[in-house]
Amino acid sequence: MAPSTTSAKGTSHEQNPLDLLLPDLPKGPLSVYREKSSFCWKELALFLDGEDVILFKKTIFTALENDPLFAHHSDGDLSLERQRELTFLRCKRIMEYDFLTMDETMDQPLKLLMLFNCLAMYDMSLVVKYLLNCQVFTNTVASTGSERHSKFVEQVKTMEIFGCFALTELSHGSDAKHMRTTATYKEDTKEFILNSPDFEAAKCWVGNMGRTATHAVVYAQLYTPDGKCHGLHAFVVQIRDPKTLMSMPGVMVGDMGWKLGLNGLDNGFVMFHNVRIPKENLLNQTGDVTPTGNYTSSFKDPKQRFGASLGALASGRVSITSVVVCNLKLAISIAIRFSATRRQFGPTDDEEIPVLEYQMQQWRLIPYLAAAYALDHFSKSLFLNYIEFHVCLLFKDKSARQAELGREIHALSCASKPLASWTAQHGAQECREACGGHGFLAMNRLGEIRNDNDPNCTYEGDNNVLLQQTSNYLLSWVTAKHEDKAPIESPLGSVNFLERFDDILGHRFPASTVKDCMDSSVALAAYQWLVCYLLRESYKKLQKEKQNGSSDFEARNNSQVYHCRTLALAYIECTVLQRYHEFIQDSSTPSNLQPVLKRLCALYGLWSLSKHMVVLYQGGYCVGEQPGRVIQNTILDLCAELKDDAVALVDVIVPPDFILNSPIARADGELYKNLWTTMLQGSKVLERPSWWTHFCANKPIIGSLRPKL
Amino acid sequence: MAPSTTSAKGTSHEQNPLDLLLPDLPKGPLSVYREKSSFCWKELALFLDGEDVILFKKTIFTALENDPLFAHHSDGDLSLERQRELTFLRCKRIMEYDFLTMDETMDQPLKLLMLFNCLAMYDMSLVVKYLLNCQVFTNTVASTGSERHSKFVEQVKTMEIFGCFALTELSHGSDAKHMRTTATYKEDTKEFILNSPDFEAAKCWVGNMGRTATHAVVYAQLYTPDGKCHGLHAFVVQIRDPKTLMSMPGVMVGDMGWKLGLNGLDNGFVMFHNVRIPKENLLNQTGDVTPTGNYTSSFKDPKQRFGASLGALASGRVSITSVVVCNLKLAISIAIRFSATRRQFGPTDDEEIPVLEYQMQQWRLIPYLAAAYALDHFSKSLFLNYIEFHVCLLFKDKSARQAELGREIHALSCASKPLASWTAQHGAQECREACGGHGFLAMNRLGEIRNDNDPNCTYEGDNNVLLQQTSNYLLSWVTAKHEDKAPIESPLGSVNFLERFDDILGHRFPASTVKDCMDSSVALAAYQWLVCYLLRESYKKLQKEKQNGSSDFEARNNSQVYHCRTLALAYIECTVLQRYHEFIQDSSTPSNLQPVLKRLCALYGLWSLSKHMVVLYQGGYCVGEQPGRVIQNTILDLCAELKDDAVALVDVIVPPDFILNSPIARADGELYKNLWTTMLQGSKVLERPSWWTHFCANKPIIGSLRPKL
Repeated sequence: MAPSTTSAKGTSHEQNPLDLLLPDLPKGPLSVYREKSSFCWKELALFLDGEDVILFKKTIFTALENDPLFAHHSDGDLSLERQRELTFLRCKRIMEYDFLTMDETMDQPLKLLMLFNCLAMYDMSLVVKYLLNCQVFTNTVASTGSERHSKFVEQVKTMEIFGCFALTELSHGSDAKHMRTTATYKEDTKEFILNSPDFEAAKCWVGNMGRTATHAVVYAQLYTPDGKCHGLHAFVVQIRDPKTLMSMPGVMVGDMGWKLGLNGLDNGFVMFHNVRIPKENLLNQTGDVTPTGNYTSSFKDPKQRFGASLGALASGRVSITSVVVCNLKLAISIAIRFSATRRQFGPTDDEEIPVLEYQMQQWRLIPYLAAAYALDHFSKSLFLNYIEFHVCLLFKDKSARQAELGREIHALSCASKPLASWTAQHGAQECREACGGHGFLAMNRLGEIRNDNDPNCTYEGDNNVLLQQTSNYLLSWVTAKHEDKAPIESPLGSVNFLERFDDILGHRFPASTVKDCMDSSVALAAYQWLVCYLLRESYKKLQKEKQNGSSDFEARNNSQVYHCRTLALAYIECTVLQRYHEFIQDSSTPSNLQPVLKRLCALYGLWSLSKHMVVLYQGGYCVGEQPGRVIQNTILDLCAELKDDAVALVDVIVPPDFILNSPIARADGELYKNLWTTMLQGSKVLERPSWWTHFCANKPIIGSLRPKL
Repeated sequence: MAPSTTSAKGTSHEQNPLDLLLPDLPKGPLSVYREKSSFCWKELALFLDGEDVILFKKTIFTALENDPLFAHHSDGDLSLERQRELTFLRCKRIMEYDFLTMDETMDQPLKLLMLFNCLAMYDMSLVVKYLLNCQVFTNTVASTGSERHSKFVEQVKTMEIFGCFALTELSHGSDAKHMRTTATYKEDTKEFILNSPDFEAAKCWVGNMGRTATHAVVYAQLYTPDGKCHGLHAFVVQIRDPKTLMSMPGVMVGDMGWKLGLNGLDNGFVMFHNVRIPKENLLNQTGDVTPTGNYTSSFKDPKQRFGASLGALASGRVSITSVVVCNLKLAISIAIRFSATRRQFGPTDDEEIPVLEYQMQQWRLIPYLAAAYALDHFSKSLFLNYIEFHVCLLFKDKSARQAELGREIHALSCASKPLASWTAQHGAQECREACGGHGFLAMNRLGEIRNDNDPNCTYEGDNNVLLQQTSNYLLSWVTAKHEDKAPIESPLGSVNFLERFDDILGHRFPASTVKDCMDSSVALAAYQWLVCYLLRESYKKLQKEKQNGSSDFEARNNSQVYHCRTLALAYIECTVLQRYHEFIQDSSTPSNLQPVLKRLCALYGLWSLSKHMVVLYQGGYCVGEQPGRVIQNTILDLCAELKDDAVALVDVIVPPDFILNSPIARADGELYKNLWTTMLQGSKVLERPSWWTHFCANKPIIGSLRPKL
């Protein structure tokens, strides 16, 4: 970052301490907007992150920038092999940096999330590779195994082994119960024998398995010697020799090849042919086998056992909710800085104005900026909820509250991952289009952001399938209410308003002016009505389906579109809005920052709500031209009010230039200089092609190959 | 394609002639759906294309499949240089094939579009490279130049030279008038001197310029020796020596590098430093310079001249409308075949059903199948409209009808390109997600389709900017009506219903049951109301803005969102629907094909309309719960009715396996066999990584590089 140039009037001891923590950004074409902003970006950054986290982020970003291993490759010709090698080396280097010790994590858990976010902003492949090994593999072993498995966790920490998580098979993804890999216990050798019945049961899509993993948590159907199947269980299976990285006997393991994005991560497949593993490698938290081959379990209900063994996946969705917001932050930062410096047309032939001045451009982009702020706040708060839950889990909390907390976090994360990943996906696409041709140039990174974000819509549960978990949770409250007359009240309070169900459904859209609508409580009230209405309609729809003779399976399938799916999305949007609304209204929020934050909150609320307007009209919450028009006008007015703050709002959330890595969006705002220079730095840009003789000699003879019809 | 296996009962002379033209598809997992379809796919294919076009397409596809130069590269590691080389070689080979002579084109112009479409289905980079050289460059020279420039057209035909079209500059795209490249006439040498004032005025994004073009049509501000600027004119500029492909003196030309897609096409930039070209290279249709340096023009109004010189761009939008539909066809074909063979969950634990059986999957995909059919019909009909216009242009038709036809085609193509490219873009993304992880694997091609489609949203006019042309056209009819009381009537009739404006605005949503809604006339009537309503609201909004003191520029900018932009989209969707509706109702449409086509038409209409439901409610066309619910239920019912026809509908529009190039979507339906085989055919899939020692030796020392805070 450039040294402070604006605030220091005299000697350094007179400097504002904030300028040391967050130096001024370089002067340039963006300064016009920075000077017009209604607030001080440094104050907002300090308020949101705190000094400690700001310094922590700076430490990480600076280390990466100064380490040649993390240098960006201007040449896009990296082979798949080389991309995977680089990501592995960087992953190893991150372990050497050890930015956050276990003690520090315990002390300030949020820093763990910040570490993931910093790495995600640098490269999604890196953070996913790192997480799969250091978090997903080890957490699964720790939470579904027992003391006898702690060695695997220790070995990962020193990279003696490298882990991966193998659940999905070639022919089964969402439908985990139908996995067909088998693990059969052999009494004589006290081993499990793993087999893939055929290639359709090959484990696949396993991150880290393609090239690097030596050990996998493998989900397989457990068979005892009596031939009985006890359902899906997790096993630690050594798939490669850590001394040579050659595959183990009976293990056919390989790399799945190029993907649409995230190519630094080696997704792989594996087939097992009579692979023997010690009995001890069964992760035995939910069930075990005696040496003589009898199955024992602490769970009586196989369904409950299955659910518990998959519980480890929840943390994945919480982390994903956060890292996809990083993608949204990167994309919107690029598009806003571009739009503030790209000039096109103007009121007169001589005057050209920044494209950010156009209402259309504001409407396309600024809501995504608001979404980045609201979702960022939500993802942090959800992470802290999860940490609370996780800590209680470690302390073996078996209270009803803990169980309810688990259900609520499950419901929230099963909807927040879809909401956040889709918002980032659509946002990245809109940002790329809003930057025109320059947005289509790979070096400006919008494509990488979009492509690396894309798999988040699928892994750790397909978005549309996951949403069913959330709507099932909400519907279960209605059933409970009907049956037990119990009050609707959840540990985090996300469903508490449903207790006022009948009252809320009697409400009508209250705002008649844009000014009314500027208060985010208007959008919030509309959302609460929306969730109640969709919940009632979904419930009715399910009942009707069943009355018409549908099985539970059919009834559920035929109640997703326009009902349960929308319900789950409305509920999570409502929760995100509610939390952001409360955060901003809170007395601890500095009053000079409140105006801009309130606008962001109202904009996020109304913009999200506007996608549900039909339902508001269908259900009679809105009637006539007025409500729709007021909401639309408020959205446009909020965009206009925020456009002079947009650059400063980006300055708060954007990483340093090196991490952002987009010539059209550097902090100095020198759009064309940076773009032009980077273009010319490419390899052999000005040379004639090596294959020039194809053109200059051997001219085609037109029609010489014309096929006869 | 596989030989006929189902229909031939006896000897070959008993075979249905249709089976020779369109052989049966191989039996396999897709057969179940094929047998359930309500119509014969061969009959529909024959009805839509005709025997001649079917044979023409087959000739092209077969030639490509049999030519090793067109072999697919299973290894995705192709360098940028190699991708560009391959595309060039294939472009050259297409000229040797000369699938369509000039005479044949004259005879059956639609075949030209079919040629583009076939090439687009194989590879978008190839067709764009081919079009830019053989169509855009030559058509621009022919239509904006004169006899003296025909040599350039001839030289392109034999590949003595290679052409490109250079309008966009680094700092100006949409705003063409502000281009800053200059061409100054020098009387003494009878030359123009071209200069780029600085790098911000470098021409950029020019397809074919990066590596191959020898000649460019360059748009520059024409200066006469008296120092007067006469506005933007087009010049043919030699940028490379055809003998060596080395750049010409004073020409700095280079390649822009990797893009998000379309990497077979070499987009380039150029800067001119006192580059001298002969006076004759001015394309002088609209203006010329005498040897002594006096400017002469057949146009008096510089605005009119400018418009005329850019008129050549219209054909680009017409072609794009068609090739993006190819992308949609490819994507939806892959997703439907996948969904018909991918089984997941089921009513019982033992029974798994194809994901196409789920209402959610139907709702996500089948509307895009309907859109592919409706937009395909529209794109062909628009192309034929354009040909009519173009032929009259060649015959110097200066009638009022010809002028009106030009305006209407301009308005239609300025909205059809955005509609079709966005539909393909969103459709490709939905298809990729609907195929889960396997949709994210590069080899299955959904990423390539999406990425190669993407630039269509930007080039030949940014979608959002283009839509303004269409809304301006519609608004001009209102002004004309107010001022001249002239009837609203256009050559193609797309605006004729506006004549019944007041009457239509008095209509209300007429359907009360799903059965009513199944008739596409319901959606069509709603669309006509929608266009009238949005036109009135847009007009009022513009008036209001002006009354409040906004300049024309501001008023227009502040009337796009929720008004003019939506108006333009509603108008083009209405037109697409209208044309498809008429086509299907036509007595020449075989009665046995009508049921399925009517469903497609109704689904496309209602699904498109459902995005505008808020407006229908706001404007009072719909009131209460019923209309919205009926439309939603009809969409779901139509999807359910079409799901057994979906595979057969794909068989009609999908190219052969070799062209489709997606293992999860081959005609034999052997999803897993084809996917697994292709995965194993990758390079070094089962080998340990070349960099295995990075893991096995040199273990990281955790924290050894820990930064001090």
